[in-house]
Amino acid sequence: MSKRDFQGLNCSIAQALDQIGEHWTLMILRNAFHGVRRFEDFQKQLSISPTILSARLKKLTNNNILRKEKNKKDGRSIEYRLTEKGLDIYPILIAMLDWGEKYAPSTEGERIRLVDRKEGRPVRPVRVLADDGRPLTPRDVTVLPGDGTDDILQNLIDHRENRKS
Amino acid sequence: MSKRDFQGLNCSIAQALDQIGEHWTLMILRNAFHGVRRFEDFQKQLSISPTILSARLKKLTNNNILRKEKNKKDGRSIEYRLTEKGLDIYPILIAMLDWGEKYAPSTEGERIRLVDRKEGRPVRPVRVLADDGRPLTPRDVTVLPGDGTDDILQNLIDHRENRKS
Repeated sequence: MSKRDFQGLNCSIAQALDQIGEHWTLMILRNAFHGVRRFEDFQKQLSISPTILSARLKKLTNNNILRKEKNKKDGRSIEYRLTEKGLDIYPILIAMLDWGEKYAPSTEGERIRLVDRKEGRPVRPVRVLADDGRPLTPRDVTVLPGDGTDDILQNLIDHRENRKS
Repeated sequence: MSKRDFQGLNCSIAQALDQIGEHWTLMILRNAFHGVRRFEDFQKQLSISPTILSARLKKLTNNNILRKEKNKKDGRSIEYRLTEKGLDIYPILIAMLDWGEKYAPSTEGERIRLVDRKEGRPVRPVRVLADDGRPLTPRDVTVLPGDGTDDILQNLIDHRENRKS
């Protein structure tokens, strides 16, 4: 299957997808956030082929989203742990969790509840916020080009702003 | 290519990925948020094959993320517009944009700037927040099962909480 990757596209979302958008990658990261670290545990809990798991872990490690290290206790077995770059994927995953829970709920009820450890209260749904904390819809946001904008992106920005006016 | 979908997995993130995780889908939605509505415009701006674009738009429409309607001016040409469910994908995309901009920046500078239309100030980076507005890291969050938790998810939650204690 020939599949163009997004690497060449000058777009932050494309760049993110290029690193974490492949089939299974976000599920592997979900498990990493749940504290899964060993190859066998990822494989067992996700029921995926070792070939795919191996390829995904390799790419995640190459991109410094996971790092490989030896288990501290036995000094031998390999563990995959989230780097700081990997931990920063948390808002993306929780935004997906919120959306999935809202629009594809289980008939049995809530699948999972996220609670602030300190205060014991539910975590807020992930939103786009203004500097003063107001929730923003796409209509409340103006998109401006920066120094890294290229013609394709500029075209898209113009498209959007023309549509609005 | 045999590719298991995530539909059967009792996980909100898997459910989200099942609807928006296919190759190109989030790029199509990115363009929809930029105000792109017509098949030809999606195709031109993303340079993707009409076959793939058509399949993705069909799935997005079937899942009520986009809706098809006739252009109000000519009463004939078809437009694809975000539904409320589609608009709720905004925090996911902006969280990806933030991450891509931080970890895969353009050497030329910022690709895009999001500004609060009302106050003219930059939009906040997307974060996971406590009820009182504190930013939360994965370590600050306890994961609890709900009525919709199944054995696989329970196992994962136990894994996580054992790891922490």
